[in-house]
Amino acid sequence: VSDPSTYRLTVSYRGGAYAGWQRQANALAVQEVLEGALEELIGQPVRTVGAGRTDSGVHARGQVASLKLHRTWPTDALLHGTNTHLPEDVRVMAAATAPRGFDARKHAVAKEYRYRFLRGSVLSPLDAPTAVSLPLPVDLDALQRAASRILGRHDFSAFASSGGSHRSPYRRIFEAEWRDDGEELSFRVVGDGFLRGMVRALVGTLLEVGRGRRSEAGLSRLLEGRPREEAGPTAPARGLVLQRVWYPPELW
Amino acid sequence: VSDPSTYRLTVSYRGGAYAGWQRQANALAVQEVLEGALEELIGQPVRTVGAGRTDSGVHARGQVASLKLHRTWPTDALLHGTNTHLPEDVRVMAAATAPRGFDARKHAVAKEYRYRFLRGSVLSPLDAPTAVSLPLPVDLDALQRAASRILGRHDFSAFASSGGSHRSPYRRIFEAEWRDDGEELSFRVVGDGFLRGMVRALVGTLLEVGRGRRSEAGLSRLLEGRPREEAGPTAPARGLVLQRVWYPPELW
Repeated sequence: VSDPSTYRLTVSYRGGAYAGWQRQANALAVQEVLEGALEELIGQPVRTVGAGRTDSGVHARGQVASLKLHRTWPTDALLHGTNTHLPEDVRVMAAATAPRGFDARKHAVAKEYRYRFLRGSVLSPLDAPTAVSLPLPVDLDALQRAASRILGRHDFSAFASSGGSHRSPYRRIFEAEWRDDGEELSFRVVGDGFLRGMVRALVGTLLEVGRGRRSEAGLSRLLEGRPREEAGPTAPARGLVLQRVWYPPELW
Repeated sequence: VSDPSTYRLTVSYRGGAYAGWQRQANALAVQEVLEGALEELIGQPVRTVGAGRTDSGVHARGQVASLKLHRTWPTDALLHGTNTHLPEDVRVMAAATAPRGFDARKHAVAKEYRYRFLRGSVLSPLDAPTAVSLPLPVDLDALQRAASRILGRHDFSAFASSGGSHRSPYRRIFEAEWRDDGEELSFRVVGDGFLRGMVRALVGTLLEVGRGRRSEAGLSRLLEGRPREEAGPTAPARGLVLQRVWYPPELW
């Protein structure tokens, strides 16, 4: 049952100008920009909770933010009104009421990320804001087998950037697959959560397997709680998009 | 036979910051930026000829520019060297030698443009630089039939913006089709040339047919040399991309 003063917003942004989603002291975050726009619309401070933090420079199509207002707002007015106060690189894509107590972070059951490479040594300016060039050949079958090795529940410590604040390094990966259409090579991963920097470290490490520089068995060993330096490099932030967040049906 | 001092560059750009391809007195054009980068690399002024002018704000993936240098340059050095002097929204994607006398504009036999709409009232910031939102429903069959009516050679005066400098208003359209994948609706058109603003006026007018506001017979009448005001509106520049330019095989 929706509570008339509890809302969820679906938020899309280009991350290039932001220090990630999470509000922080010394750098501009998407959350701060969104809360500023909401305050301009509503006339008083608004606090939001985002489903995923997203690192500096990472994009989102389907970030979800929950908030509580002191009175009821028509969702269409909330959507379009907030957008009039947002910069062009942040947009509320949808607004809806949610059940009382809905928390976009705590109640999320899965998140989907996508990472996009384009083949060739020069990246078109039309693709550059949201993709990374892949000048070297990769073995797609090896990439795909490597992706299937990360499925299930593992200790992903080897893929966690320093500075994260996770209580447990265990996460469960539900889906992981590469898609190749010739010009574009992309990676899609769905999991119950991700450590800081984890998707990009996975992408960097899987690519090493795809280039024959790391064995598949070596990848599997990394899933048993190894130090970060044993895994591969962190792929650049601008290729990564938080695509979607899932909630239990009774909350969405 | 290639001439060692005649070159062709394939150029991609986001058009948002530029007054089109063609160098002009009072506004920054892509050609001026490219020629500036070439001059920094080569050490002397370089003049280029572009295949298509592209209007202000229109993007390119496959613009072609021809140029002549006073001495031979390795094409890889020309490609990467020019890119180091270009802003991030303009990139040389490929460089090659060309036959003596090759002229990117005069020798072009066909050009392909694509126009991209995304359904919904809010456009994601990830798509906004290169697409336009389409909030209203359209009849895809009607759009497709309308597209097939523009095939062949016609007097496209009704689709030419003022300020163009064409000698003849006749152009031949080889291919014209809409593609619909649910979220994205796009239009692809290949012709032997396009009058100023013509692709965007075609898109705006075809959409009127797709929304039932203009008859297919009415569209056909526009192809007989009618005034601009009888056709539909000009679709926004940022949805349009010059995708590719074709040349006779002996020149490419």
